[in-house]
Amino acid sequence: MLKRGLVEPIGLVSSLNQFKHLKPATWEDMVVGGHEIRGISLLDEALRLSREFRAFDPRLVEQCGDELAQIDARIRPGTILNVGQTIAEMADEDVPVDQSPRKAIERLRADMDHFAKDAGLEHVVVVNVSSTEPLADVERIPKSWAELEPMLDDAAECPLPASSLYAIAALGGGHSYINFTPSLGAKPEAIGELAKLNGTRHAGCDGKTGETLLKSVLAPMFARRNLNVMSWVGHNIFGNLDGKVLDDPKNKETKVSSKDRLLGEILPEQPQTHVSIEYIESLGDWKTAWDHIHFTGFLGTPMAMQVTWQGCDSILAAPLVLDLVRFTDIARRRGETGLLTFLASFFKSPLGVEEHCFDRQFQALEEWAGE
Amino acid sequence: MLKRGLVEPIGLVSSLNQFKHLKPATWEDMVVGGHEIRGISLLDEALRLSREFRAFDPRLVEQCGDELAQIDARIRPGTILNVGQTIAEMADEDVPVDQSPRKAIERLRADMDHFAKDAGLEHVVVVNVSSTEPLADVERIPKSWAELEPMLDDAAECPLPASSLYAIAALGGGHSYINFTPSLGAKPEAIGELAKLNGTRHAGCDGKTGETLLKSVLAPMFARRNLNVMSWVGHNIFGNLDGKVLDDPKNKETKVSSKDRLLGEILPEQPQTHVSIEYIESLGDWKTAWDHIHFTGFLGTPMAMQVTWQGCDSILAAPLVLDLVRFTDIARRRGETGLLTFLASFFKSPLGVEEHCFDRQFQALEEWAGE
Amino acid sequence: MLKRGLVEPIGLVSSLNQFKHLKPATWEDMVVGGHEIRGISLLDEALRLSREFRAFDPRLVEQCGDELAQIDARIRPGTILNVGQTIAEMADEDVPVDQSPRKAIERLRADMDHFAKDAGLEHVVVVNVSSTEPLADVERIPKSWAELEPMLDDAAECPLPASSLYAIAALGGGHSYINFTPSLGAKPEAIGELAKLNGTRHAGCDGKTGETLLKSVLAPMFARRNLNVMSWVGHNIFGNLDGKVLDDPKNKETKVSSKDRLLGEILPEQPQTHVSIEYIESLGDWKTAWDHIHFTGFLGTPMAMQVTWQGCDSILAAPLVLDLVRFTDIARRRGETGLLTFLASFFKSPLGVEEHCFDRQFQALEEWAGE
Amino acid sequence: MLKRGLVEPIGLVSSLNQFKHLKPATWEDMVVGGHEIRGISLLDEALRLSREFRAFDPRLVEQCGDELAQIDARIRPGTILNVGQTIAEMADEDVPVDQSPRKAIERLRADMDHFAKDAGLEHVVVVNVSSTEPLADVERIPKSWAELEPMLDDAAECPLPASSLYAIAALGGGHSYINFTPSLGAKPEAIGELAKLNGTRHAGCDGKTGETLLKSVLAPMFARRNLNVMSWVGHNIFGNLDGKVLDDPKNKETKVSSKDRLLGEILPEQPQTHVSIEYIESLGDWKTAWDHIHFTGFLGTPMAMQVTWQGCDSILAAPLVLDLVRFTDIARRRGETGLLTFLASFFKSPLGVEEHCFDRQFQALEEWAGE
Repeated sequence: MLKRGLVEPIGLVSSLNQFKHLKPATWEDMVVGGHEIRGISLLDEALRLSREFRAFDPRLVEQCGDELAQIDARIRPGTILNVGQTIAEMADEDVPVDQSPRKAIERLRADMDHFAKDAGLEHVVVVNVSSTEPLADVERIPKSWAELEPMLDDAAECPLPASSLYAIAALGGGHSYINFTPSLGAKPEAIGELAKLNGTRHAGCDGKTGETLLKSVLAPMFARRNLNVMSWVGHNIFGNLDGKVLDDPKNKETKVSSKDRLLGEILPEQPQTHVSIEYIESLGDWKTAWDHIHFTGFLGTPMAMQVTWQGCDSILAAPLVLDLVRFTDIARRRGETGLLTFLASFFKSPLGVEEHCFDRQFQALEEWAGE
Repeated sequence: MLKRGLVEPIGLVSSLNQFKHLKPATWEDMVVGGHEIRGISLLDEALRLSREFRAFDPRLVEQCGDELAQIDARIRPGTILNVGQTIAEMADEDVPVDQSPRKAIERLRADMDHFAKDAGLEHVVVVNVSSTEPLADVERIPKSWAELEPMLDDAAECPLPASSLYAIAALGGGHSYINFTPSLGAKPEAIGELAKLNGTRHAGCDGKTGETLLKSVLAPMFARRNLNVMSWVGHNIFGNLDGKVLDDPKNKETKVSSKDRLLGEILPEQPQTHVSIEYIESLGDWKTAWDHIHFTGFLGTPMAMQVTWQGCDSILAAPLVLDLVRFTDIARRRGETGLLTFLASFFKSPLGVEEHCFDRQFQALEEWAGE
Repeated sequence: MLKRGLVEPIGLVSSLNQFKHLKPATWEDMVVGGHEIRGISLLDEALRLSREFRAFDPRLVEQCGDELAQIDARIRPGTILNVGQTIAEMADEDVPVDQSPRKAIERLRADMDHFAKDAGLEHVVVVNVSSTEPLADVERIPKSWAELEPMLDDAAECPLPASSLYAIAALGGGHSYINFTPSLGAKPEAIGELAKLNGTRHAGCDGKTGETLLKSVLAPMFARRNLNVMSWVGHNIFGNLDGKVLDDPKNKETKVSSKDRLLGEILPEQPQTHVSIEYIESLGDWKTAWDHIHFTGFLGTPMAMQVTWQGCDSILAAPLVLDLVRFTDIARRRGETGLLTFLASFFKSPLGVEEHCFDRQFQALEEWAGE
Repeated sequence: MLKRGLVEPIGLVSSLNQFKHLKPATWEDMVVGGHEIRGISLLDEALRLSREFRAFDPRLVEQCGDELAQIDARIRPGTILNVGQTIAEMADEDVPVDQSPRKAIERLRADMDHFAKDAGLEHVVVVNVSSTEPLADVERIPKSWAELEPMLDDAAECPLPASSLYAIAALGGGHSYINFTPSLGAKPEAIGELAKLNGTRHAGCDGKTGETLLKSVLAPMFARRNLNVMSWVGHNIFGNLDGKVLDDPKNKETKVSSKDRLLGEILPEQPQTHVSIEYIESLGDWKTAWDHIHFTGFLGTPMAMQVTWQGCDSILAAPLVLDLVRFTDIARRRGETGLLTFLASFFKSPLGVEEHCFDRQFQALEEWAGE
């Protein structure tokens, strides 16, 4: 739709005036491909999003049928190695069963390389936007790539979830990697090392789109005004595929931990927190969050603030994915490798960054842009 | 209560760690006096606030009866010259009728000077915390003190409201002046000039305590994420004396204009805004605000955010008044005169400052402190 | 859409099981016509409602283009006599200027009669769904039809607004009349008398679709639990044409008075109430209401309840209009004339009924149906 | 406080005008005693409720110290037989360990009889207001008293929780029994039989005080307007002792099941429902509930309603306990025995009643009163 000029660049951080001089890639410069484990078509999904969930005008989708079909043709089967049972059950029967993590990585990397070559691309940015995996057993992952690499041959022994296999495939092939989910991805030091070794870059994790964005905006206010937050409850309800996957307690654990952490980092004292995520089918992609913040002010007087957020989940996430791709590409042009910490404002759990206040994170982005 | 160590310094910005090195005045250093037009006692008012409005534990007040009586003894009758009809009607019959603005100023200044001498104070900071006056006719106020000064003899000709007379009394006497309300105070250039002429300082205006604080925290989020705010509705209900005064449309006009302006300053495009303030007696000092923010995201998808804020109005304001006094006193020690722009984060309509994002304003305070 | 079976009868009270035995008119039995002062087409308006305001799937509208065009052909120019300035300014220039109330009534009745004859109808039910008029000067309206009738010749002397002229046209012609708005319509005794004289029937007024429906459901709960409602604040925002008309204080006065009254009728003591209605363009047909209810419970403990209602105004109203037509038609078949009080549950200000509890009103409907 | 005339009878259903002619017992007629397993004093608890949780004015409590001490003197140690681990852990070490259900029942009954005799009472109404027990294994409870009675000797074999032992003690001794909690109490047929056998009466269960009351008021509105409720989410947070007990999943299960059932009974089709209850310590007795109701209206248009309820849990419950005692006493005077179904409006899960609409339940109470 952006390519065809059907919509304004609303929601795109990279289209703000203060980033114009960086000359982010244009929509014409960009080609979309990917991996998928379900047997779906993008046009069908987009129509469902627009008609069933009322996310946007279906006529916009109908005008982009050709583009969506072209992208579909560039989508290859993903891997279900170590995705956890709930996600594995969603896979199409045609998805190949990889014999080892190494085999999976090789297959995925071949797809990425072929995609780059076929489309004549200078730079591939692999973004993980798949459903949240169960918490990985990070204790079992060695700290260096030299130690981790030999484990890839044995599916039973290798503790890496699918998201990390994609990360290895991408970084090992010199592509950039962005983790938009709380899954493990390139979080392990050993995998981050791979980015450096191959002169490429990565960032993550977990796109900060709605309720957690609000937390990173509101919590600093309480801290700066020396108001004492006693409890912060966040209740999230929605009914899309992500919600369905998060209905599995193992997958939900990963997500809740990512949503919950930052309050203790921003506030001087850890308040009692509670985050719940419930799959409510009728809501579809419309994530509704209710936050209740209980705090004391002067003389110990208890006060309360409540927030209701009604946002369309995919629509909030989509422009940030494009932003991350564009900013990562600018970093490549500037010769930056390794972990891209200037992208912290986009993530719930920014790798390598202890600053959780959204304004300070955004300022870091602006400062990077101004350099 | 602070002096007696009955309460923690919650809600006091000046007690945050990052300002400790500035050595703000201790509670023991401070003496409270003032002007008042009503026939009330502080103990009665504090008990009413604690019992009727459940603002804080009445036992805290009971322990401070002596201090409150001592403060009462230092409170002198204020002026009702040009306060507008609604406020004038609240005045005690003993409040003297000043024959001209000049006479009023002389009387108020004499009180201030006597207060300083009597209590052996190095520095008096006069803070306007009186009810909001009707909008003044600023067109009629000349730009320089030399032109304004002669107008003070004629009550009918002089366009200055009471708040400006207090400001002139304070600044003319070398005291500092802080305007915590949207009333005119020291806003006119001619009065600001007086601060410079007398080597003293002032700041304002309108303490940013609740709903507007939220606006200055949330609006930057929408701007930075390039989300298009279409409308922002704020509905405020409360039942204290301030609310009663604001029930007069002439007084409300001053307040609404101060609450409403900043959105257009922060957001790239002016959204439709609506601010209402209604006097609902049962709520007492508990100001409840409901904000509804309607915005479009990616692909033009409309989304909504709602906030409910339940705060105790006086309790939110009180620590900021103490903060302003302490920071103004530090500025005096540092030899700073004129308009104190580093205090912008405390005000809805900061004089001399175009930055309305709370985080940037707060950063300015931290930078000033770090100098 | 109902005729074509494109949608389920959701939202239609007359389609509930307990009313099935009454055999309400089928959609095939019904023919739609009307009066309109604007130069619009129904298809355009329906598409705008579906596309711009996201009220329903535009594909549903597209399938009904023929029906909408047929209805358009049966719509005749209305009258702008005494509609108030704000509404008059919306009129198409082709709308005829009636020389007197009597002339207007004659023209409107001729349209109604022609419509009935042309479509071969047994029964015409005229429903007022036009924008709210300014408050009429009811003091000047005589109590009997004999006294009122002669006033119709003089536009300047006749105090009747347009809604009452339509009512007289309908009732005088033996048609039924339903007032779905707070405008005057058939409220005056003298016009109600006309229904009796002509063996026809009427009901009103002001469709109870959203916030007021909630009040009539929630207020009885407080009364029955002996909870003491101290204040009830209702803040309504929306951006459709109705909202635009209500932006005129004269028109809003009529509406607010209808929305506000029932609390004092249901609750044992009149609480402080406040109703505001604001035109917020971006919301279109999506009326969002925030209600704040402040009450005391046992031992005088103050508590609060807040409600946010996000409903599509036209979509809430439309099925009730169909219900009223069907129930009125059943009343005709049963030979009932005069004021139809059993329809009270549909109205904010039910004529001739003092019961405002929704459940009791609904029970009256069920009892009538069971007779 | 009522006895001393310190407060108005707000929140008391039995004090409504329509029940005056029944001459409910006066506060002077009533004497309070009870069983308790914790080592607490009523005065301390009441002061904590008033000071820490701000439930009511502490000065009210201070004036009632003598009465509270007298009640304390009438409180005997309860039983911890089959209360579940979480509750058992709260017991004071002095609470006697009963050797068998029969021994416990005998001890409790002796206390009740002694209480009645000592205070010279005509009628004892035992109300279960203890913390919610884990779900009982009802399959193992025989249908008749004759079969159940012999099981009382063997603690291991007897499936009855403590609440049922109190019920048996009360009903077996000819006292009335009211179950204000979702615990089992007199729910089993065999125990209800005991009421009949002893010419006494019982009712239950689970006092309908807040969020569920709202459900039983709002759900009928959706049903009567033929609006299609797709999902109803209720999120409850509070921090009193009840909340602490419900933090144990086994105890929570009992409560959630009672809160959740009625929607399916009132609405024509079971919507997706979700009820959560979380222990948030800072809230104390202030239960805050957020309900999100997602429904479709005409043409399938999805709409939403949200409710926030901020009520003081004990303060909502207390007057209903008094109401139940008074109405049960009136039933005794009228000679009514067995299950008192006319009390349905007071309960989330009314025994023997299928009607869940609050208005119809209340009407049943009024009709009973009018007989």
